Amino acid sequence: MNTTGKVIKCRAAVLWKAGEPFSIEEIEVAPPKAKEVRIKIMATGLCGTEMKMLENQFQYPVIMGHEGAGIVESVGEGVSTVRAGDKVITLFLPQCGECASCLNSEDNYCVQLKQSYTGLMPDGTSRFTYKGKPIYQFANASTFSEYTVIREISVAKIDAGAPLEKVCLISCGFSTGYGAAINTAKVTPGSTCAVFGLGGVGLSVVMGCKAAGAARIIGVDINKDKFEKAKELGATECISPQDFKKPIQKVLVEMTGAGVEFCFEVIGNPEMVAAALASCHESHGVCVIVGLLGHGVQLSIDGLLFFSGRCLKGSVFGGWKSRENVSKLVSDYMAKKFNLDPLITHTLNLDKINEAVELMKTGKCIRCVLFL
Amino acid sequence: MNTTGKVIKCRAAVLWKAGEPFSIEEIEVAPPKAKEVRIKIMATGLCGTEMKMLENQFQYPVIMGHEGAGIVESVGEGVSTVRAGDKVITLFLPQCGECASCLNSEDNYCVQLKQSYTGLMPDGTSRFTYKGKPIYQFANASTFSEYTVIREISVAKIDAGAPLEKVCLISCGFSTGYGAAINTAKVTPGSTCAVFGLGGVGLSVVMGCKAAGAARIIGVDINKDKFEKAKELGATECISPQDFKKPIQKVLVEMTGAGVEFCFEVIGNPEMVAAALASCHESHGVCVIVGLLGHGVQLSIDGLLFFSGRCLKGSVFGGWKSRENVSKLVSDYMAKKFNLDPLITHTLNLDKINEAVELMKTGKCIRCVLFL
Repeated sequence: MNTTGKVIKCRAAVLWKAGEPFSIEEIEVAPPKAKEVRIKIMATGLCGTEMKMLENQFQYPVIMGHEGAGIVESVGEGVSTVRAGDKVITLFLPQCGECASCLNSEDNYCVQLKQSYTGLMPDGTSRFTYKGKPIYQFANASTFSEYTVIREISVAKIDAGAPLEKVCLISCGFSTGYGAAINTAKVTPGSTCAVFGLGGVGLSVVMGCKAAGAARIIGVDINKDKFEKAKELGATECISPQDFKKPIQKVLVEMTGAGVEFCFEVIGNPEMVAAALASCHESHGVCVIVGLLGHGVQLSIDGLLFFSGRCLKGSVFGGWKSRENVSKLVSDYMAKKFNLDPLITHTLNLDKINEAVELMKTGKCIRCVLFL
Repeated sequence: MNTTGKVIKCRAAVLWKAGEPFSIEEIEVAPPKAKEVRIKIMATGLCGTEMKMLENQFQYPVIMGHEGAGIVESVGEGVSTVRAGDKVITLFLPQCGECASCLNSEDNYCVQLKQSYTGLMPDGTSRFTYKGKPIYQFANASTFSEYTVIREISVAKIDAGAPLEKVCLISCGFSTGYGAAINTAKVTPGSTCAVFGLGGVGLSVVMGCKAAGAARIIGVDINKDKFEKAKELGATECISPQDFKKPIQKVLVEMTGAGVEFCFEVIGNPEMVAAALASCHESHGVCVIVGLLGHGVQLSIDGLLFFSGRCLKGSVFGGWKSRENVSKLVSDYMAKKFNLDPLITHTLNLDKINEAVELMKTGKCIRCVLFL
């Protein structure tokens, strides 16, 4: 059946109101306009950031989801880089190639990301409707729908042989953690690292540290159930702050003699950011904030921590320029440079999305991939 | 007169107690022990950091001063890199060449710096006495004395033709600012920079930004008398926060469209650190703290400033590995790659050190060089 140019009716998980469960609905998906791509989503992760946003999303109703992989169904006018049938990954962070960030080799924070804050396309409309009434889009992606429409700059074409139910993690969580180590921190061979928070992104940081050749990777989490997996993925040891009377930063400085060279906060807790910075080597230590801090959260940090040269930096999508690197990361996965399997602990059909939310909330799963 | 191996009697500015003026005294300077060097100090700057320490030094009596240049009088056993008659610069930051920081290409914070916190040599004694009673040393330097003894690792041999009354600034203030731009921030050609605080170090940051090829260098100070000199040294424009109703970070973001790429806090004020970070480009902006924050000062920073990728880092001695780079910086000065003259607004004899303190306190001078 050729659906090109036609409205597609399909199922999607709609969030009607903050705090409510998702509701599976039949919605309408309009054809892509110029420079837009309509994608049949095959698999999507449920990301921790999304969990935080469930309560804070301000546009309703909305179709969330931003860690998706699928197949191009049709393309709008002027689309030149993908075509129907291509396997693709959705990119919450676009790469327009034209803004100051895209043109800066040290930056990946494309200004077009901000389009997503409107929940609409640049023309001010949504491609989703429910019984004719618009539904907001989300994060340049909206992958909790069997079909979605996103801009060409938010789509990465990937290897035709890639297993979509695995590589969808490259759309957000895996790349965010893995790249934070490789690109943002620039972990060096033989170095000592610590990772605060061993969820899906934290584990990906561990994998990035290992890939960069770190000699010692210390996992830090209060949930010891996470230690086995962390060690499987590269952590050389794991500790729980609850096992010590002294602050975790003192523990880490003592364990390493002079603090770790690279430290990652992958929780989104302001006290842990301060602790992570203090855990770093006093002069060449680099601390990367990967966890999402809430709006209005103030960091309170002893100014002297910076005196001797420490560095604190943020990281978005692991510092990867999205379009060009997601394709490469998928190729790396295909070449077995890293393994995504250990990160995917659960798979469910989209219908079961509320179960997936529960699994995430209770910390029972690392990553749940939904099939559409 | 050959003084080698003998105690030298000479004049020094002694600080007997916190808050008191300096007192010129005749003191005794012991010969250098193994791996130590005795230097006839010819010129020394009075540094802003020192001014802050006047009230906070905890060991008395003390001979302060850490921005000195002089001539080696004699060397102790095992000293191989300098000899009597060599022109040298004192280094508050040593370069032992053996510690983890010295061995790390991205670090210059030699652990031997901490020896200075004792106010004594590693053997637990001072080379200074007054009527036989010990006087504490300061900052691996103690340059407010006609003669001082410091460790070989705290001495940089320099060009025999170098004018000591100028290049003494390379011992601290100039290098700290100039290097913060070049080494710590790694200012890029064509970039936009802002410098908060246009004292001697801030002006040196301006010079560093210019040397690195910055296209736009915005000087920020509440004292407009400093603007002329800042422009002479490379600032393309200067603004006072007091001329605006909105916060200076908003002013800078509006002036530049998206924030400056490199921002330097050269005041030592926690609110200004937060403002400087917020003045930076949201994703590739780098903010360097050059100003000295007091003990116990907490920085309160909106966590979201890091979300998009901003970077905040400290800088010590401009990131220069001291021994190897001070010699090179003096050569660069001799080759007229930069000019120190505009930074030196006053020269006085050591006897007038309390007048120099007043000039600094009242903001009437950028740098006062004392002759010994």
